[in-house]
Amino acid sequence: MTDYRTLRVALLGAGAVGSQVADLLLKHGDELADRAGATLELSGIAVRNLDGKRDVDLPRELFTTDAETLIVGSDIVIELMGGIEPARTQVLQAINSGADVVTANKALLATHGTEIFDAADQVGAQVYYEAAAAGAIPIIRPLRDSLAGDRVVRIMGIVNGTTNYILDRMDTEGADFADVLAQAQDLGYAEADPTADVEGYDAAQKAAILASLAFHTTVPLEAVHREGITSVDAAMIESARHAGYVIKLLAVCERLSAADGEEGESISVRVYPALVDRAHPLASVHGANNAVFVQAEAAGDLMFYGAGAGGVQTASAVLGDVVSAARRHIAGGVGVGESTRANLPTVPIGRVITRYQITLEVDDKPGVLATVAGILSDGRVSIATVEQTVIEPTADATGASARLVIGTHTAREQDLSETVERLAASGVVERVVSVLRVEGN
Amino acid sequence: MTDYRTLRVALLGAGAVGSQVADLLLKHGDELADRAGATLELSGIAVRNLDGKRDVDLPRELFTTDAETLIVGSDIVIELMGGIEPARTQVLQAINSGADVVTANKALLATHGTEIFDAADQVGAQVYYEAAAAGAIPIIRPLRDSLAGDRVVRIMGIVNGTTNYILDRMDTEGADFADVLAQAQDLGYAEADPTADVEGYDAAQKAAILASLAFHTTVPLEAVHREGITSVDAAMIESARHAGYVIKLLAVCERLSAADGEEGESISVRVYPALVDRAHPLASVHGANNAVFVQAEAAGDLMFYGAGAGGVQTASAVLGDVVSAARRHIAGGVGVGESTRANLPTVPIGRVITRYQITLEVDDKPGVLATVAGILSDGRVSIATVEQTVIEPTADATGASARLVIGTHTAREQDLSETVERLAASGVVERVVSVLRVEGN
Repeated sequence: MTDYRTLRVALLGAGAVGSQVADLLLKHGDELADRAGATLELSGIAVRNLDGKRDVDLPRELFTTDAETLIVGSDIVIELMGGIEPARTQVLQAINSGADVVTANKALLATHGTEIFDAADQVGAQVYYEAAAAGAIPIIRPLRDSLAGDRVVRIMGIVNGTTNYILDRMDTEGADFADVLAQAQDLGYAEADPTADVEGYDAAQKAAILASLAFHTTVPLEAVHREGITSVDAAMIESARHAGYVIKLLAVCERLSAADGEEGESISVRVYPALVDRAHPLASVHGANNAVFVQAEAAGDLMFYGAGAGGVQTASAVLGDVVSAARRHIAGGVGVGESTRANLPTVPIGRVITRYQITLEVDDKPGVLATVAGILSDGRVSIATVEQTVIEPTADATGASARLVIGTHTAREQDLSETVERLAASGVVERVVSVLRVEGN
Repeated sequence: MTDYRTLRVALLGAGAVGSQVADLLLKHGDELADRAGATLELSGIAVRNLDGKRDVDLPRELFTTDAETLIVGSDIVIELMGGIEPARTQVLQAINSGADVVTANKALLATHGTEIFDAADQVGAQVYYEAAAAGAIPIIRPLRDSLAGDRVVRIMGIVNGTTNYILDRMDTEGADFADVLAQAQDLGYAEADPTADVEGYDAAQKAAILASLAFHTTVPLEAVHREGITSVDAAMIESARHAGYVIKLLAVCERLSAADGEEGESISVRVYPALVDRAHPLASVHGANNAVFVQAEAAGDLMFYGAGAGGVQTASAVLGDVVSAARRHIAGGVGVGESTRANLPTVPIGRVITRYQITLEVDDKPGVLATVAGILSDGRVSIATVEQTVIEPTADATGASARLVIGTHTAREQDLSETVERLAASGVVERVVSVLRVEGN
């Protein structure tokens, strides 16, 4: 065996991902050393509770509750605690003590990314975070390096496995949201408190990270428009299917041309349930899988597909970063800094231009369609398709109703939402059943 | 604008990819400078013929026929000539004069990769080749960096756009190989001499490159088993469809466990038309697109999808490499060397274990199926499925015939081929219609 220099690797956190990272570091030490050009010595694992239950058996002497002492003298610090504090403090401590940092902490990067990357730049340290954006899927290096000579136009990502699992089961089984969520919780696909997933917070954090990279711009979490999937019901899924669509929770990061009277480009970053054509590659991403669809000016359409979560899958991405960090330690030189030179402004959701599907319940009497069409036209929303069906009256119905499903051409979100408000107040519309964006053609 | 250091970039070749690279370098200079941290000055374009027709308009004063003088004093040399010579000599000259090299030349890397990487190691130069493996799809960095902490088990790649286009049209239209090839040639999807594509030479070069990276092993082109698609006809496609498969030209790179009585792992690298289940993600790769499906021990299943060829698409991958090379020049330090430390042996095709579909024409008389089943069983080939249909007799038929389509469990290629030989000689088999491997359970 070659005689390598030894690098001290500190691990913060031993949860689902951390315990797998430790296990793989110990198990594949020789192979990793060959690839990194350095022996990776796991110097310790900082945890809150020494007696906590771990997914895999790890040598007890590695554990410590004293993260700060562990960090001192480490060459590489892997942060897998999650959450903002103490992760933020310890990551900054690691950077300032000269270590490179590997993290999967999307919440931390989406909220304190600038502080962390600035601190790393100051001392010439590098922060690696392949596992923070889409689990095991290599997306950070492709965006940062492979596409560095290209211009990303749009990213559409299925970046949250829990919501994709729920929407996929609703689509294949016709089941309702609450039922599938309960099953997902039983199976461990959803947390007891599913808010972060189903309300789109997790996807929004990942969208901020992906947009920052793709557009060389600092995208704060607050700039990400966010809607969850709790309002998606079986009827909406069925209606989508009828129209040749599937509903996916998408993180959309888009480069916008200069609007009339404005100078320069801007970007839009948004997370919401959207209609995706069943022939689109994203439509066939099933179960808890993730996929990131990237459109670039020169490269055209690219898609990256794989497991978006899971302890051992995410550990693969973390270890790839550890090897990169080790290679950099051995090779010398400074790493690739975060590129935020473009610093494009983020536009509010009202400025977004996309297509829509509007579903209305209307009075079933003459002239209603003409009224609806008139309101849309006045609101600068152009109709592409329309389908009207009679709704069977129920016992307590006061009159005959019809359902209108309207597909629009591209429209400005602000125009669209004002138009929908006018429709709701028009007297002929009994109920606005749903308004969904259509993404990806 | 920031005042950057200037790096001199020399371009060798101005064909479909080269002219787009030059165009993008000139058009997006400021943006590329911001990303690279260096001004990228296109110092010249070496071509054979100064008056050659180019895909895009480029400043005439950049062109030269004197590649050797251009290379001297360059920081980055982009080799997009293709072919072995003079590409090999000029790439080595560039390395030895201290430049980093970016190349899309799969033929060169698959045949002289070791020589070139060794030369680069000697002087601490780096060779980038993202565009050599699957056009615009970022696959090199994911394999070299993102999965560096994981163990790749298998790669199944659709890495040749021309053959995927031909097979896809045969599948969707029921057309025959020769007709679709002629159309593909008319449309520019296939070359006038299509041998490199349809006989699998191009795919074999890419398979050698991918396997070398994935398994940290030097894989010479001669170690790649190669079969083309010229024997695939409409009847085979139809029969595949009937059984729920689609035929794809696959590059399969596989890690094999130690066989009985042997020590250590080995690998198999092979290119052939194979049956792929229609539910597999690779089955939905249509047209001239490429996709690389990667299975890793920890990461699980990943897929990378995009354009496999095309001038501007491939130019995106080349420019990503140029930016990486520039960053390295600015940052200092040595780059990531080729990792060939595992150096696993490549096994011959006879050692490969996979599933098969055997289609036979047999005499339609009692006892034939029993005879065929006996021969398979004697040859250690286990039957999973069997379907027998009567063939309508033609005018010149000598007797009633039946068609047998046999799906096998996994078998050793050597056992399988010996068994097929015995079937052909058995007296009850009129014709072995086809033997196809089934990949990607």
